Amino acid sequence: MPEHKAKDFLVGVDLGGTKILAGVFTSKLELIGQAKISTKSHRGVETVIERIAHCVHEVLDECDLSLKQVKAVGVGAPGTVDTEKGVAIFAPNLPAWKEVPLQKQLEKALNLPVVVGNDCNLCTLGVHEVELKGKPRQMVGMFVGTGIGGGLILNGQLYLGHNLTAGEVGHMVVNVDGPKCGCGNRGCLEAVASRTALFRKVQAALKAGQKTVLTDFLGSDLKDMRSGDLRKAIRKGDKLVERIVLEAAGFLGVGVASLLNVVNPEVFVLGGGVIEALEGEMLPTIIKTAQQHVMGGALKGVEIRASRLGDNAGITGAAVIARSKSKGRAG
Amino acid sequence: MPEHKAKDFLVGVDLGGTKILAGVFTSKLELIGQAKISTKSHRGVETVIERIAHCVHEVLDECDLSLKQVKAVGVGAPGTVDTEKGVAIFAPNLPAWKEVPLQKQLEKALNLPVVVGNDCNLCTLGVHEVELKGKPRQMVGMFVGTGIGGGLILNGQLYLGHNLTAGEVGHMVVNVDGPKCGCGNRGCLEAVASRTALFRKVQAALKAGQKTVLTDFLGSDLKDMRSGDLRKAIRKGDKLVERIVLEAAGFLGVGVASLLNVVNPEVFVLGGGVIEALEGEMLPTIIKTAQQHVMGGALKGVEIRASRLGDNAGITGAAVIARSKSKGRAG
Repeated sequence: MPEHKAKDFLVGVDLGGTKILAGVFTSKLELIGQAKISTKSHRGVETVIERIAHCVHEVLDECDLSLKQVKAVGVGAPGTVDTEKGVAIFAPNLPAWKEVPLQKQLEKALNLPVVVGNDCNLCTLGVHEVELKGKPRQMVGMFVGTGIGGGLILNGQLYLGHNLTAGEVGHMVVNVDGPKCGCGNRGCLEAVASRTALFRKVQAALKAGQKTVLTDFLGSDLKDMRSGDLRKAIRKGDKLVERIVLEAAGFLGVGVASLLNVVNPEVFVLGGGVIEALEGEMLPTIIKTAQQHVMGGALKGVEIRASRLGDNAGITGAAVIARSKSKGRAG
Repeated sequence: MPEHKAKDFLVGVDLGGTKILAGVFTSKLELIGQAKISTKSHRGVETVIERIAHCVHEVLDECDLSLKQVKAVGVGAPGTVDTEKGVAIFAPNLPAWKEVPLQKQLEKALNLPVVVGNDCNLCTLGVHEVELKGKPRQMVGMFVGTGIGGGLILNGQLYLGHNLTAGEVGHMVVNVDGPKCGCGNRGCLEAVASRTALFRKVQAALKAGQKTVLTDFLGSDLKDMRSGDLRKAIRKGDKLVERIVLEAAGFLGVGVASLLNVVNPEVFVLGGGVIEALEGEMLPTIIKTAQQHVMGGALKGVEIRASRLGDNAGITGAAVIARSKSKGRAG
């Protein structure tokens, strides 16, 4: 470990419903270490905030660094987040998580500047700033995991919208008569193409008496199914799982096309656990379907790609806003 | 008519597939006169450009003005339009209309500065600048006529996207298994809620043996049906037409919700011939459906409304870009 001057580092935190991920970055946004702990959201808001602080300490210790060497901490949180006020307004996946003054409480706990943002917005920002070197003027990010979220980079800047809720790409309706979504409506992209939707379809097919190799390695109730299991099943020639995964990829392609038509970005990036696990299986269908559904002019010179940052997109974007904050303070 | 100094006026032109509308505006964007002629697009590109120039002469004559009193002319054209280069790149509704140097040819014909833009983008701009006094920082416009187009005002500016095609809100897919759209795909908003879609559904129901009062005033083939006829039928208690119109309104509401989720504007404006004719019948259902389908946070303080500019939205927006151009030239 080379010696570093004080205040050379940034910490990015990705607060999820089940786990907290933290990463230490150099001021050039190179990731030098990570730590992960469970969220324990059922223990309440105070505990979650303590655990975020704990995870920051853990990752610094892992990198042989101390809080004194950190310029600022960025945190991506699910749901609606008011970056300016530093408040997590609402998060469907974190019980009792309403109007939480996340920035203030973490600044107190860590004695460091903290900045907060929406998790999928920060994933988009991380991909834009680090993976794509900040080049695309217009970019859409879509992250497919338990749910589907996203973010928009417009004219080179993260676009937040009137209520800071812009980029909810998972709640575009693609199939008005489709299955019920967690948001209460029917046929949202999230309801037909998220990991939750994929697993629900596999379970339903199994209950309807269809066969899948998934039962060979997960047991008859498909307990603890993960996206990687679907990939494994497809590679073993499981036609049922292949059909379900390709159908979801088709829906994602339709959603991508709708967004290309409305936003007309230069680059469209897909990420999240489902894409990471099933990129080879899904991406060709997503791209082909999007190309079929987009208006001619909107596709010229447009790239549709999967992110290479994987699980680190969120902490990377969190480090980006931490850097902006520390620059703003310095200037 | 008061006497005016030279170069006090702006002309806005809305080039449509069947008609050309031109309006004269004061420098404060007050509309003082209009003229309308048919497009005659089958006679070719040269003829259409001559007819635009002719319509500009007509409207000036109507207002007792001459070309010398005009600062600049703005033109809204359908399809993809490159404002910077002044070229109409592609228009599905104008045959042989490809890579037309509209600005250059009109500047030659009129000997005046000309600026061109996409028609629905300019409708959005006209509503934003004149009807809403330029106030909303984020606004979406959706215009429902023969097709469905739109535009986005983001951070106070008209947003064009990477290929200048942004705002194609009619080609968001809302019903992936739905009817075929003019763009080649299935279930686009335009395929289920445009005037074309409404008329197709009425014709199909008639062929299937259902009764409608429309045949009383249009004859058995429903020749020359207009949006206003649907309103008339509903007011006469025609349940078939009411059902078809409300179904379309529901689809529009779903499209509005999807856009609120993705773009999170402060104001959402609906316009175009269908909305103008059927506002009373459709708007309550559009708003109710949108409210049901939007994510909670995205709706706070958001207004969904019909434009009051009607057919004049396009010429108003065209006058707005004409004014920008003349200011740019002056400065």
